[in-house]
Amino acid sequence: MSNCTVTFLPHQKKISIPKGTPLIRAAMEAGVHINASCGGEGVCGKCRVIVESGQVDGGITERLSQNDVDKGYRLACQSRITSDLKVRIPIESEVDASVLNRQSTPRKTARIKEMNLEELKDQGLFVPPVEKKYIELPEPNAQDNLADASRLVNFLKMNHEEHRLVVELPVIRKLPDVLRQADFKVTATLARPVQPGRKTRIINVQSGDTTDRNFAIAMDIGTTTIYGQLIDLINGKVLAQFGDFNHQISYGEDVISRMVFAEKPGGLEKLHTVVIQTINKIIKRLIKGAKIDADEINSITLAGNSTMTQFFLKVNPRYIRRSPYVPASTLYPPIKAVDLGLALSDHVSALVYPAISSYVGGDIVAGVMGSGLYRANRLTLFMDIGTNAEIVIGNKDWLACAACSAGPAFEGGGIQFGMRATKGAIEDFSLDPTTMEPMNITIGNARVKGICGSGLITMVATMFEMGIIDNLGKYNRDLDTLRIRSTEGIYEYVLAWADETQVGRDVVLTEVDIDNLIRAKGAMYSGCQTLLAEVGLSMQDIEHIILAGGFGSYVDLAKAMALGLLPETDPDSVTFIGNGSLMGAKMSSLTNRIRRDVVEVTKRMTNFELSETASYMDNYVAALFLPHTDLDQFPKLKARMDARKTAANKSSEN
Amino acid sequence: MSNCTVTFLPHQKKISIPKGTPLIRAAMEAGVHINASCGGEGVCGKCRVIVESGQVDGGITERLSQNDVDKGYRLACQSRITSDLKVRIPIESEVDASVLNRQSTPRKTARIKEMNLEELKDQGLFVPPVEKKYIELPEPNAQDNLADASRLVNFLKMNHEEHRLVVELPVIRKLPDVLRQADFKVTATLARPVQPGRKTRIINVQSGDTTDRNFAIAMDIGTTTIYGQLIDLINGKVLAQFGDFNHQISYGEDVISRMVFAEKPGGLEKLHTVVIQTINKIIKRLIKGAKIDADEINSITLAGNSTMTQFFLKVNPRYIRRSPYVPASTLYPPIKAVDLGLALSDHVSALVYPAISSYVGGDIVAGVMGSGLYRANRLTLFMDIGTNAEIVIGNKDWLACAACSAGPAFEGGGIQFGMRATKGAIEDFSLDPTTMEPMNITIGNARVKGICGSGLITMVATMFEMGIIDNLGKYNRDLDTLRIRSTEGIYEYVLAWADETQVGRDVVLTEVDIDNLIRAKGAMYSGCQTLLAEVGLSMQDIEHIILAGGFGSYVDLAKAMALGLLPETDPDSVTFIGNGSLMGAKMSSLTNRIRRDVVEVTKRMTNFELSETASYMDNYVAALFLPHTDLDQFPKLKARMDARKTAANKSSEN
Repeated sequence: MSNCTVTFLPHQKKISIPKGTPLIRAAMEAGVHINASCGGEGVCGKCRVIVESGQVDGGITERLSQNDVDKGYRLACQSRITSDLKVRIPIESEVDASVLNRQSTPRKTARIKEMNLEELKDQGLFVPPVEKKYIELPEPNAQDNLADASRLVNFLKMNHEEHRLVVELPVIRKLPDVLRQADFKVTATLARPVQPGRKTRIINVQSGDTTDRNFAIAMDIGTTTIYGQLIDLINGKVLAQFGDFNHQISYGEDVISRMVFAEKPGGLEKLHTVVIQTINKIIKRLIKGAKIDADEINSITLAGNSTMTQFFLKVNPRYIRRSPYVPASTLYPPIKAVDLGLALSDHVSALVYPAISSYVGGDIVAGVMGSGLYRANRLTLFMDIGTNAEIVIGNKDWLACAACSAGPAFEGGGIQFGMRATKGAIEDFSLDPTTMEPMNITIGNARVKGICGSGLITMVATMFEMGIIDNLGKYNRDLDTLRIRSTEGIYEYVLAWADETQVGRDVVLTEVDIDNLIRAKGAMYSGCQTLLAEVGLSMQDIEHIILAGGFGSYVDLAKAMALGLLPETDPDSVTFIGNGSLMGAKMSSLTNRIRRDVVEVTKRMTNFELSETASYMDNYVAALFLPHTDLDQFPKLKARMDARKTAANKSSEN
Repeated sequence: MSNCTVTFLPHQKKISIPKGTPLIRAAMEAGVHINASCGGEGVCGKCRVIVESGQVDGGITERLSQNDVDKGYRLACQSRITSDLKVRIPIESEVDASVLNRQSTPRKTARIKEMNLEELKDQGLFVPPVEKKYIELPEPNAQDNLADASRLVNFLKMNHEEHRLVVELPVIRKLPDVLRQADFKVTATLARPVQPGRKTRIINVQSGDTTDRNFAIAMDIGTTTIYGQLIDLINGKVLAQFGDFNHQISYGEDVISRMVFAEKPGGLEKLHTVVIQTINKIIKRLIKGAKIDADEINSITLAGNSTMTQFFLKVNPRYIRRSPYVPASTLYPPIKAVDLGLALSDHVSALVYPAISSYVGGDIVAGVMGSGLYRANRLTLFMDIGTNAEIVIGNKDWLACAACSAGPAFEGGGIQFGMRATKGAIEDFSLDPTTMEPMNITIGNARVKGICGSGLITMVATMFEMGIIDNLGKYNRDLDTLRIRSTEGIYEYVLAWADETQVGRDVVLTEVDIDNLIRAKGAMYSGCQTLLAEVGLSMQDIEHIILAGGFGSYVDLAKAMALGLLPETDPDSVTFIGNGSLMGAKMSSLTNRIRRDVVEVTKRMTNFELSETASYMDNYVAALFLPHTDLDQFPKLKARMDARKTAANKSSEN
């Protein structure tokens, strides 16, 4: 899609942005505030702008008079960019440009990184786990009546230098008929050993030449959502991907309630069956989406947290939830997919990512593998923020990991209007420091329904930097605005008035919400500090940050750092990998090197039970401030805040 | 059981024989002929003998007058030996003692050999495939909350020098509860790798110390009968054994008809299901018989011919019965017993003996391993005579094998009154050369019902040596006896008159029967000759014979050699191993050395398709004589026959 250049006046801020983007998003990206509280359905009618040159699509509603329209007024939330534009923010919704320019930094999200097959090859890491060989066998006769399996094996030995081959029973069962129906011209599918020197298994045999059709499935078994990808092993491309809610949700929203359910009679079997059903549904969709036959899939790799993995394998996680939190195993041998009830051919093995501990699971290990952290030269902080938050710190020489009791604040848990990142969630936010009017950007440009993780972080960080909340997360009681008020003794900020929302109530951000966020970010930050201290390092030593989890995709890095959620580093050294678990599963499908290395990596990953680590509690208490008790850890933020104070003093002096 | 000495008069032949043996059997063993045609129910009343000293139990029937009884007359077939005896064969049923002594050699059967655990240990071949370790693990706590599986593995590594361990999924599933219920004092079951350096699998974990309970099942899947043994792996003892008809018989008596059935829709599945049902029935009986729990069985090893093996594994033997006779595979990987439907725990692997070709199957390979042939220094001939006959020739350096189209004569097939070796079958035979009266010994001392393999061999050999049949198997038409007659143009010998039998008809041995026997033995002998010729050897080079199969147990070796079924060797160098297939399966259960060596052995076993070997037909035609066209191959027989001729000439001169 081609980009257009939008120039915002009077700020003189320019941004290059894809055609079709709503104008209000372009403003947000450019760091230009426009009052807008309804979320983008044109309900509040506040986001009036004047298009001075160029064309937009839409933006004309009953909220604008014909006269306004003729003057070039449009509602920014309803206008889609179709050409280069000059857009003026009208006087009534503009504050002093110098203040604006100071408070708003251009939005910066993490660079997205995804490794691909070419990269693997370049790095010498490409060792295909499944290969196909097309062969034309001599037909048997009275002088040469070798067994069919021996004929196949001997030919591969003589002509393809394939040694130590073993033919699996399902192949032996079909081999005689396939050979004769195909006039002894067949394709053999070879599953390579993970450890060199072990046996190569012949797992399938097909009529004719099918060497160009070799597929795998990678899957992330999340507590909430299960994602699958269908991968073409020839070129490493993702041919289809699909996600669905983990149907286990019917038996418990969170991990703990499902573990409780699993202890009831038949509970474990039910949860196992249900997760398999979900996975099978996804497999079916993937096969349909990629337009291939189920028989052409040759492997499946899965990653999930320890509890999800145990449910998947029908291993009761009974002792995961009880002190001292012991998983049944961290390592699982390959298992026949059909033995688990998966709707795949009987030649497919299911590989499950190993875990580290009860709360640092296979999903995190997959992220470490998929992101390449285990081969990193730089000291790297890996954070996976989902229903729970896990951190890994280290490089190619050492790795330390821990689960943080961050709670689900980043997924909307414990936040009055918190919600997952779905339609209607405020995901971006700006504030007019003079009027206290908000600019709410919602997912899907829908009317406000609630607040998702990235919106929450931006809101709290913005309010803190503007002095609307203090470093304890308390609202300034002295501000002259209706939006800050006390309801039943709890102070809150009104993001959107009832009539601008989908929920028919004022959508607010309370001090309790802010407190929960501070606890969550405090847990993560102190987790990192504690791990680093254990190896004699500090937050300042971190050279690279990898963000995993759906959460990290849209987070404004400067805001996350202002909040003290991330250590203050160069935003360019932050990488976002998205679903690290799925990425790791995919990588493992593509190359045996990952499979070979992963067991070694799990041995290198030292697990810390933070609750058992003496310094953790001190670090945690120190982190229960915005951004932290020790502001020296955030020098850039400190400089900005000092500048703001100086400016404020100046303006009050004036 | 203690032995008694029986002295037969006037022959002055002594024999030591177990107490309780019927007197008539003692006579047969001693080479003393007593007229007896009914088989031992006292019906014919011919086997009158006089007990001159000592006591017998029974033997007094209505066939004897009180006067006779008072004189010491007893029916030999009805008398059981209870003390040392002197027994006189009365004049009316005795011929000239010198003739008798010349014609009757003492009965000699093959030495029975069964290898045991101590022998394996002595030979350095004992490498237990499954071992148990009792361990007391430290309990987890906040500072040490390793996964349960890691705790187990680490402990075994640190305290038992166990490396390269892998914990199987079924163990992981039960491990957490077992550990805690047993206060972390458990027994781990370790399945050793066949190839050194591979991984040891932890296949089970049990509460407390169960190291003294470690069992395996060995099974021979025969076309007719399936035999199982339950083996104590601690001491190598067979705790229970049980055989049952292969229920597949309902779908076809022989292998070919079952292969035909397997090609019908659902046919293979049916035959697979039925053989599994039979095996499960046997397993159940074995477990009950040995008074153990099913969970305590840690392995099952099975051997069968190629077709039975393919049915067992649900692999269609379609191309085994069609030229060029190709089996699907000769080698099968270990398979989870439960995946095959076997009624064993999910930790049990089923090991199936590899085959050589379509008609030299895993049963023969098992015999080669179990008998130790593959380690033999002497040139050895191994013969397995059952529904089909297979031969293996060789020693520790080389092995050649072939299936002979011998047909089922030795199991009663193609013989008018042929039957399997069950109750009422004539299994031993002697002939009065003057009167032509027979001495029939039946299995179970029951009335005559038919003729089994060993009886047939003894009959034909005896008649041949006595000149009653010639070297083409034709009856001497000039003999003065009612027992030799022509019925519908076919000459026959009446073994038992209708009223002496169970079948209400005269039981006879016809020239057609004899011809079928000659073809069968000719096929086997020429098979051996052909194999030997291919490696530049001849029958005279054979130093040791191993007989396998139910057939070989009671065969009179001198008779089998007189017939030209076996090469003429010292009977002491003939070993009988019984069910070689079962023996091999048992050995494989006891030591991994057999499992490791077997694949190498199968590579060393060169298979000959006799029908494709040029010299076979010539050898076969030459063997269609008694004992052979080339009598020089049977020097001892030649000497005996020459002596007989001289004596006959002398007596006719007198």
